[in-house]
Amino acid sequence: MTCFGESHGRLVGVVLDGCPAGLPLKEEDIQRDLDKRRPGLSELYSSRAEADKVEIISGVFRGYTTGAPICMVVKNLDVDSSVYEEYRFKPRPGHADYPAYVRYGGFNDYRGGGMFSGRLTIAYVMSGAVAKKLLSTIGIEVYAHTVQIGPVKLDRKPTLEELRTKVYASPVRCVDREISEKMEAIIREVKSRGDSIGGVVEGLAFNVPPGLGDPLFGSLDGDLAHLLFNIPAVKGVEFGTGFKVAIMKGSEFNDQYVYRGDRVETLTNNSGGILGGLSNGMPISVRVAFKPTSSIAIRQRTVDLREKVDTFIEVKGRHDPCIVPRAVPVVEACIAFTLADHCIGLGLIPKVLGRKS
Amino acid sequence: MTCFGESHGRLVGVVLDGCPAGLPLKEEDIQRDLDKRRPGLSELYSSRAEADKVEIISGVFRGYTTGAPICMVVKNLDVDSSVYEEYRFKPRPGHADYPAYVRYGGFNDYRGGGMFSGRLTIAYVMSGAVAKKLLSTIGIEVYAHTVQIGPVKLDRKPTLEELRTKVYASPVRCVDREISEKMEAIIREVKSRGDSIGGVVEGLAFNVPPGLGDPLFGSLDGDLAHLLFNIPAVKGVEFGTGFKVAIMKGSEFNDQYVYRGDRVETLTNNSGGILGGLSNGMPISVRVAFKPTSSIAIRQRTVDLREKVDTFIEVKGRHDPCIVPRAVPVVEACIAFTLADHCIGLGLIPKVLGRKS
Amino acid sequence: MTCFGESHGRLVGVVLDGCPAGLPLKEEDIQRDLDKRRPGLSELYSSRAEADKVEIISGVFRGYTTGAPICMVVKNLDVDSSVYEEYRFKPRPGHADYPAYVRYGGFNDYRGGGMFSGRLTIAYVMSGAVAKKLLSTIGIEVYAHTVQIGPVKLDRKPTLEELRTKVYASPVRCVDREISEKMEAIIREVKSRGDSIGGVVEGLAFNVPPGLGDPLFGSLDGDLAHLLFNIPAVKGVEFGTGFKVAIMKGSEFNDQYVYRGDRVETLTNNSGGILGGLSNGMPISVRVAFKPTSSIAIRQRTVDLREKVDTFIEVKGRHDPCIVPRAVPVVEACIAFTLADHCIGLGLIPKVLGRKS
Amino acid sequence: MTCFGESHGRLVGVVLDGCPAGLPLKEEDIQRDLDKRRPGLSELYSSRAEADKVEIISGVFRGYTTGAPICMVVKNLDVDSSVYEEYRFKPRPGHADYPAYVRYGGFNDYRGGGMFSGRLTIAYVMSGAVAKKLLSTIGIEVYAHTVQIGPVKLDRKPTLEELRTKVYASPVRCVDREISEKMEAIIREVKSRGDSIGGVVEGLAFNVPPGLGDPLFGSLDGDLAHLLFNIPAVKGVEFGTGFKVAIMKGSEFNDQYVYRGDRVETLTNNSGGILGGLSNGMPISVRVAFKPTSSIAIRQRTVDLREKVDTFIEVKGRHDPCIVPRAVPVVEACIAFTLADHCIGLGLIPKVLGRKS
Repeated sequence: MTCFGESHGRLVGVVLDGCPAGLPLKEEDIQRDLDKRRPGLSELYSSRAEADKVEIISGVFRGYTTGAPICMVVKNLDVDSSVYEEYRFKPRPGHADYPAYVRYGGFNDYRGGGMFSGRLTIAYVMSGAVAKKLLSTIGIEVYAHTVQIGPVKLDRKPTLEELRTKVYASPVRCVDREISEKMEAIIREVKSRGDSIGGVVEGLAFNVPPGLGDPLFGSLDGDLAHLLFNIPAVKGVEFGTGFKVAIMKGSEFNDQYVYRGDRVETLTNNSGGILGGLSNGMPISVRVAFKPTSSIAIRQRTVDLREKVDTFIEVKGRHDPCIVPRAVPVVEACIAFTLADHCIGLGLIPKVLGRKS
Repeated sequence: MTCFGESHGRLVGVVLDGCPAGLPLKEEDIQRDLDKRRPGLSELYSSRAEADKVEIISGVFRGYTTGAPICMVVKNLDVDSSVYEEYRFKPRPGHADYPAYVRYGGFNDYRGGGMFSGRLTIAYVMSGAVAKKLLSTIGIEVYAHTVQIGPVKLDRKPTLEELRTKVYASPVRCVDREISEKMEAIIREVKSRGDSIGGVVEGLAFNVPPGLGDPLFGSLDGDLAHLLFNIPAVKGVEFGTGFKVAIMKGSEFNDQYVYRGDRVETLTNNSGGILGGLSNGMPISVRVAFKPTSSIAIRQRTVDLREKVDTFIEVKGRHDPCIVPRAVPVVEACIAFTLADHCIGLGLIPKVLGRKS
Repeated sequence: MTCFGESHGRLVGVVLDGCPAGLPLKEEDIQRDLDKRRPGLSELYSSRAEADKVEIISGVFRGYTTGAPICMVVKNLDVDSSVYEEYRFKPRPGHADYPAYVRYGGFNDYRGGGMFSGRLTIAYVMSGAVAKKLLSTIGIEVYAHTVQIGPVKLDRKPTLEELRTKVYASPVRCVDREISEKMEAIIREVKSRGDSIGGVVEGLAFNVPPGLGDPLFGSLDGDLAHLLFNIPAVKGVEFGTGFKVAIMKGSEFNDQYVYRGDRVETLTNNSGGILGGLSNGMPISVRVAFKPTSSIAIRQRTVDLREKVDTFIEVKGRHDPCIVPRAVPVVEACIAFTLADHCIGLGLIPKVLGRKS
Repeated sequence: MTCFGESHGRLVGVVLDGCPAGLPLKEEDIQRDLDKRRPGLSELYSSRAEADKVEIISGVFRGYTTGAPICMVVKNLDVDSSVYEEYRFKPRPGHADYPAYVRYGGFNDYRGGGMFSGRLTIAYVMSGAVAKKLLSTIGIEVYAHTVQIGPVKLDRKPTLEELRTKVYASPVRCVDREISEKMEAIIREVKSRGDSIGGVVEGLAFNVPPGLGDPLFGSLDGDLAHLLFNIPAVKGVEFGTGFKVAIMKGSEFNDQYVYRGDRVETLTNNSGGILGGLSNGMPISVRVAFKPTSSIAIRQRTVDLREKVDTFIEVKGRHDPCIVPRAVPVVEACIAFTLADHCIGLGLIPKVLGRKS
């Protein structure tokens, strides 16, 4: 996966190399997932109005992948860069502005955060859509949903049915209607004060065969975490019971094995489906912590890098008061991409799907 | 970094490619860090008595690195594989036994967990020792320490002085004497019941220049997390305030900028020194959750993969009741390795250190 | 460098990751090299009339590279795929049609050779244009020219001045006017019979500092050859005296050292500027053999893969009777790209060029 | 494949990552190929007397590969570094001494050429031996033989039977007895004058399935050439008819297709079994040009890098007057390694060979 583009440049794109030939693929397959990432019309979201229409540029011929690199792009249409001139030398707290200024000697495209913008996650979503189609050929299903926004948590496990049908019915991507409404209220409240709020997304993958992953540098959890931390605003990743393991005893944590028919399963799934970097055949579960949106209208201290003096900033522009709902399809995409990559590597998904007549 | 070896094979080794030429390097430099990882003599640790003596096999000539690949090995001496025959077809809960059996068709070296053993972290520690010497040439210091074992937490920030002098004076690698003793008590207690306990290690890096890292697939936090999740038993990784970001508002989380003399700093360090995948010049802080040791003497359910029936297991062998103290130098090593890798990539550490006369 | 696109698809594109920030870059810089690759108007070339206009899609902001991935594309405009339906199951001898059919299960885009077309070398030329601008910042110059077409050879070494001014003045890219005319005559002759002819291109790089390259898997000659063999139609690559080394004695071949002022040089350059995978400070010289264009109008034997019977083919379409002249800027580009990559890796070209005011 | 070690260091080693589990592997399998590379007892070879005994250090358990990284080493026993002190600042013409001195700031291990020594090809031979065992599971056979030493050439194609039985019966690795004797005479003659001579090795692979390789950066010829140029002393690589393509017409060069039973074959094999970077099912043939051994006893000009003056050198030490015979198993190994790598990548060789009972 090679991404390119900028928030306020011409477009955001991705090239996927190594996708098997013979996968039926249409722009609608990609568009469906992109639409899940688009801001809604309610006040919970940014007012930047992007259609986010995908174009498949290469690698697909007469409805099937060819085995050649797949390039997909989404054009940027509703760009308003005017406010960013002010921030050019005044880094916005919480954003990559300051380290990017140092890293690129001031040459980086600072408009809308450039390549550090959350808009680049469009590339992940497009890649994830292809990955999910690949995974569906061997029965793997991948979902994500919101489990926490501010202090409001979903404390129960969602059913597979809820994951399939309820996530995107909720404006905050939470399967429980009551909790969803509480989450919406929180977002509205922080927004009304020009502030923002953080949250947690859970990703789940079902029907993952055991033995996926490589030890050491190709561990499945390592690869998943690597990609998930590449989503802007992620500050934590945990598998299974995650940080709660600290207070657990081995006798509580260990997932004991039993036969269910011919299939080896575990009585619990504290490990989140991954042991020693390999999938163990149980559902993979991972939780991802998102920080509150950095762009807030509240006055903050910052510096003027040109004048070398302290100063203040109030960040204008069109920002989501909570990034979590829009991050849900991105988490889903990252998990799907990593799993598909491992399945191809192990030969579970072959290099050619069928044969063209 | 390429690792090889097995827990009960001949040795554990690593090859480092791309290390700059001209770094003074002796076996003592590596041994010092290996000794921190060795089990102590107290009952807090496994009774496997390994000297863990490093041998530098290649890449060092007359006391300096040559620029050629550096191979370092530690031989396995105190190997007792007798108990493992029993586990060959009876996977130990919490271990990689079962997925490895599937992944490798039963050909994997199951003795002592083979290449999935925590013993492989010797390779990380050796690599980290070289990385720390490289980082010291540009003033970067890396530390790790225990912040939680079971319910006992270190709730304050350690001073730099404590990190430099107190960590390895504590048998559990906690800088606070009182808390260290409570942690020891917990470990003794679980051990007495044949059980084990989890915990959390914090890693810190100081004097990291801003702008280290690449956006997207070379993000500094993504790369750190990737390597940290490759440590066996890690179930969570978080930067800065980590999962607590979920309940924070942007106005609380954002680290505001100020000039301290010529230097740009932030008033807080909630982001743990990383923004948008790039270092921002503040200390890097990362917390790593370790699950309780999987090998426990308590009777657990498992399956017999040959007979295809349910059965029971009580894991014998010599195991640490808590892996956390021994994981501290490993976390330190992983952070040092990742930072050195990025510093070399950006040219902050040159490909040749000085010139030989 | 990640390439995408197909001969008869929408476009051909490339994404360059890792290009330093701060390089002045305009579309004209790229266009200049693309124009060298375009077929001329004479009968020496294919009649496919493509403007080959480059568009820089990302990674450049206000005239300078930003450090973000640079995406560049050239649209396909003059596409006529009608003849290719006939070849779909009748592989053209000398083309990748047959192995591609097997490799991709018939799903590959067979029109115009799809991703196996020489048209994909547009991606190399675009990348090489950026690389040459980078190399010029440290004084490295890269050239290529035709040294053989059919039996007609340039037997003398070109001067630097000729390389700078004469190559693209010749329709066959040969610096010697008389020989150029003989080469043209050969091409016209084979074309008149519906046939094609092969040739040899020489690439040269001047002012390359000594010590560029890594031993073993990062050897400079290995990396150059890797990229050069990725140009369609290349069947041989040799450095310096190349295959003639077979009849040479060590006393003849060895390039003996002398001081020229402060600079170490060699009396001869039989090694072509590379020793043990490292540049030695002398000009790099490499010769690349191109097979005759596979598409010829002459009747040839082939098979029908659907009917599983032997058959015949006469390849229609618009093809160059000799690919060599158009391969010259491609060889140039591949050398420039590889050298720039190594210069960045070694820190000879820094990650940021200057600082934006 | 990760190599380590030096000519006069402790050993030469290699780590192979990604080898499928379940391959029967013994040290004898490796030793057989190493013995082919060892200098013979005649005056055609260097007098350095190394047993070159392989030790498998990891990745093999009870006679089968485990799927873990395979480390193999050969110790250096007969090391005499005394002569090399003289060359430390006086680079030997034709060797990597000078560029390595610049590249590593004088820190490189200059004894015996350090990591630039032909002795490192032991690592390739060990890897190739494993690769050949893997390839044999799907019927692929790989051979190499000497086709030219100085002016003496083998002008006919060897039979498969000759490749299987005659190559290593000849001290110069030439299948034709008469030509072999002429080659030996040439080597003896140049040796008597303290000189050396070059030559050409041909590599062949049979039963390679069509469709192996990836377009662009994973082309089979590109990958083969990359590895072959990493063998010290290689100055040219050509496939099929190679550089002779320059004088060929398309109607002569193109390999026309016919059915032989169910199998698609070509009437000729000018392309050497590779089209567009993909294997086409015909034997792969590649020719590799080796320069004369750089170390000669004849007085040559060089420089003193410390004193910065011109001087002279007569290279002592134990050197082969012609490297070609010893390069034959190395070429064989490089081809086998590259093919095995592609076969694993495409899933033609599965990740687990059988299942252990």
